Amino acid sequence: MDLKNKLRHVMDFPKEGIDFIDITTVLQDAEALSCAINELKKQALDLGDFDLIVGPESRGFIFGVPLAYAMNKGFVPVRKKGKLPYKTVGIEYSLEYGTDIMEIHADAVKPGQKVVIVDDLLATGGTIEAAVKLVEKLGGEVIGLVFFIELSALKGRERLSGYDVRSVVKF
Amino acid sequence: MDLKNKLRHVMDFPKEGIDFIDITTVLQDAEALSCAINELKKQALDLGDFDLIVGPESRGFIFGVPLAYAMNKGFVPVRKKGKLPYKTVGIEYSLEYGTDIMEIHADAVKPGQKVVIVDDLLATGGTIEAAVKLVEKLGGEVIGLVFFIELSALKGRERLSGYDVRSVVKF
Repeated sequence: MDLKNKLRHVMDFPKEGIDFIDITTVLQDAEALSCAINELKKQALDLGDFDLIVGPESRGFIFGVPLAYAMNKGFVPVRKKGKLPYKTVGIEYSLEYGTDIMEIHADAVKPGQKVVIVDDLLATGGTIEAAVKLVEKLGGEVIGLVFFIELSALKGRERLSGYDVRSVVKF
Repeated sequence: MDLKNKLRHVMDFPKEGIDFIDITTVLQDAEALSCAINELKKQALDLGDFDLIVGPESRGFIFGVPLAYAMNKGFVPVRKKGKLPYKTVGIEYSLEYGTDIMEIHADAVKPGQKVVIVDDLLATGGTIEAAVKLVEKLGGEVIGLVFFIELSALKGRERLSGYDVRSVVKF
């Protein structure tokens, strides 16, 4: 299936001049959703053995949890400050305007565990860099990063140099 | 597997006096995650044939997307106002303090399609009632509601009377 053609482009969202790539047209089509998860699985399998999938709120949940289920792995959420109920470790990261804080449960990744980080989209890589640092703070080893979509022009791959970066659909 | 014992209770989150049920201990355990999705699937299968799974942001994504994948269905997200990029239909609903607006893409459910709504937790049922109304606004038929956890004392089931409500773990 041509997953690229199943994505919808919405112009001027969230603001003028942005060509937003809408994943919901893939999600709502059973065959396309199944194909997307299976393609992510191929990429993740190619990274070698690992223990956990980590995904950032909230679109990292959309692909990360079904991928964890399909590969019989556990899933660990990374969330915005104040959303996770138990003891957390946090990190500040830059947004377009200002900064935000992302958190992970302090006991979610054990030292030495191998982790694959999953998200819907690789743009500039800021959120994902924060997720990588959180996993490493807990002593986990990030063996790779898997994205459904990569916006190559935004050079997130350069920001994440030193990590094995995979994507299913490139623009 | 005893899924109830895999859940973690966090006292006084998000505020004093609340016994918060933390699902992340289920998610991060591969066997428990697999068992949770399979139990949700049993409940959904028992509702009969349907076309789509609808799940509200963001913990509805956590169980809804893997369930859609496991059952070879499409998944439609319901999100807070302004998050969905394409044309939407919205509804105002009550929170503990004030109101909020939830939206669904206007073309996400076709008239006559059969829908199962999935979320992590049934408490008072306010969010889910909003999701039900959004599906019905689009002409969809809600054939059932499936939750991972049900807090029976909060009587969400009464608020949703007339709908087939299922849950995997009850407190």
